[in-house]
Amino acid sequence: MDQKLTEISQIGEFGLIDRLTSDLKTVNESTLRSVGDDCAVLSYPKTDVLVSTDLLLEGVHFDLTYVPLKHLGYKSAVVNFSDIYAMNGRPRQITVSLGISKRFAVEHIEELYSGIKLACQIYGVDLVGGDTTSSRQGLVISITAIGEAEHSKVVSRDGAKDTDLICVSGDLGAAYMGLQLLEREKFASAGQKDFQPDFSGKEYLVERQLKPEARKDIIEELDKAGIVPTSMMDVSDGLSSELLHICKQSNTGCRVYEDRIPIDYQTALMAEELNMNLVTAALNGGEDYELLFTVPLHCHDNVSKIPGIKVIGHITKPDLGCALITRDGTEIPLKAQGFNHMAPVEETK
Amino acid sequence: MDQKLTEISQIGEFGLIDRLTSDLKTVNESTLRSVGDDCAVLSYPKTDVLVSTDLLLEGVHFDLTYVPLKHLGYKSAVVNFSDIYAMNGRPRQITVSLGISKRFAVEHIEELYSGIKLACQIYGVDLVGGDTTSSRQGLVISITAIGEAEHSKVVSRDGAKDTDLICVSGDLGAAYMGLQLLEREKFASAGQKDFQPDFSGKEYLVERQLKPEARKDIIEELDKAGIVPTSMMDVSDGLSSELLHICKQSNTGCRVYEDRIPIDYQTALMAEELNMNLVTAALNGGEDYELLFTVPLHCHDNVSKIPGIKVIGHITKPDLGCALITRDGTEIPLKAQGFNHMAPVEETK
Repeated sequence: MDQKLTEISQIGEFGLIDRLTSDLKTVNESTLRSVGDDCAVLSYPKTDVLVSTDLLLEGVHFDLTYVPLKHLGYKSAVVNFSDIYAMNGRPRQITVSLGISKRFAVEHIEELYSGIKLACQIYGVDLVGGDTTSSRQGLVISITAIGEAEHSKVVSRDGAKDTDLICVSGDLGAAYMGLQLLEREKFASAGQKDFQPDFSGKEYLVERQLKPEARKDIIEELDKAGIVPTSMMDVSDGLSSELLHICKQSNTGCRVYEDRIPIDYQTALMAEELNMNLVTAALNGGEDYELLFTVPLHCHDNVSKIPGIKVIGHITKPDLGCALITRDGTEIPLKAQGFNHMAPVEETK
Repeated sequence: MDQKLTEISQIGEFGLIDRLTSDLKTVNESTLRSVGDDCAVLSYPKTDVLVSTDLLLEGVHFDLTYVPLKHLGYKSAVVNFSDIYAMNGRPRQITVSLGISKRFAVEHIEELYSGIKLACQIYGVDLVGGDTTSSRQGLVISITAIGEAEHSKVVSRDGAKDTDLICVSGDLGAAYMGLQLLEREKFASAGQKDFQPDFSGKEYLVERQLKPEARKDIIEELDKAGIVPTSMMDVSDGLSSELLHICKQSNTGCRVYEDRIPIDYQTALMAEELNMNLVTAALNGGEDYELLFTVPLHCHDNVSKIPGIKVIGHITKPDLGCALITRDGTEIPLKAQGFNHMAPVEETK
């Protein structure tokens, strides 16, 4: 280990926790008591409490050969905030549990935490607790986010109705293309010292993969416009997979139009360069963290006015099934290829 | 893999989640919406919300060569409930995240879940969400517990005052001795098929290690007696370590008496058999999940009447430090040897 780095065993678990949390301040009035006890203490007398949790494992969800620790921390927090926004809520607190293997120094964990803290600062969220332990294998990150929403404004997956408009924020497929690009450069760099990866003209793809944002802005814009979606999810596993969830849980079908799916030109160029089908990437690539939601037909004009939201199709009766209408008018059934984090991986143990 | 077992890849992530959660029912009115969406939705209009989280990793916190999966599930849930009780709260919900390596079949995970569900049933807690993913290494279990407490009755670590009585529930050191016993039998069985471990006369130790309980009963008894402790923790890292936390955070000292520390006779016999110091085991052995708390001096008679609670010492002014008074009257400073889950372990990757 580098001489300038501090081994965790030098300061122990409590020493590490002190270093990570001594500068924490809380900003939300719902946070009554933060780190330093058996539990965090919160207060939500007027709103519903939303809880979401994500488990991120090295070698499955992230590859530290190209993911900087600060970015990893930022993303780990943001993907949890995204789940809270996806129910029309506002994230207020997170707990962070880490499993840390021997190869990490105190400074590495501080770097990871700096990303988590930055995300908390930008999104107005308090870090209120967690657990820190050693890991015999890779890095383990488990984050639970707690948020709030007015009871009457909580949006679930099961409220879509026939004729509702299907909307999506931002653009799709870029994070997936960013992953392909990073994997390609990792492969190209194998064994070469001082290898300079080539990301020129593809910065957006890399950023979408390494430093995604949750769509707080869209939730705020919808609120300002007085629109409460009938159903909503965030796009973490791919548009197809999420649409199928909404339709299954709402007992509906849907039609989405290929030419309406928002795709950035960098995503399109990269798909061409890699000889991949662009629409497949946009439908099935994961980790976009955009919001997919449905609104009643009469909201068409209002929702269309909001920058960054695109109407991509509509909800149908269930017997029509779920399909994509291609540019030439062909109907193709939607399939959930998605991101399968349960796909078998090689065990290294 | 056994022919009768189902590989997780056969049914996929969503298939697995369906199998694990399709029979879930909720019992608490604070649970508005359970599994099946981006977030669980809860409601706590009248009480404070308590949140606690624990990360359990194979090879660090548990050894599947002698821990049955159902027991592991039960214990994983109960240790989180214990954190909620430790603040004088009542657990109401948990989320369960699992990282599952290839060697586990669907039936194994159902077995683990059956233990979690049993604990939820016994303690009246709803399983409301989680995350399931593949792991490249061992089993990863991350549980977050959510509970409630009346605002004025939340008990933290920092409220102990000079002359307060120090109380502990149950007995100490048994879980640690159970661990020593299980490790010894594992060592003895190495390479032998059909090895029969010898636990006769030591069943209590094994049970304390494999199937601990959280002291819901003590919290209820204290409530009935009208006693709100001035500080409280659960004994997960060892009595010494927890006492030092309370004294540090309350800015006090303490005296505890060796002859008052509750120890089961099986614990004592096992310590003798292993030639270990009994008091050291009781002070520093972890995972007892008993409650350590302080009450004002005037509660002495009331607290002493409650079965299963023992007064073991008192809080002092900070300049007196923290010490154990041995049977012969010697003062020995308390040290936090505790359970160090951050101790370096060999990385197997």
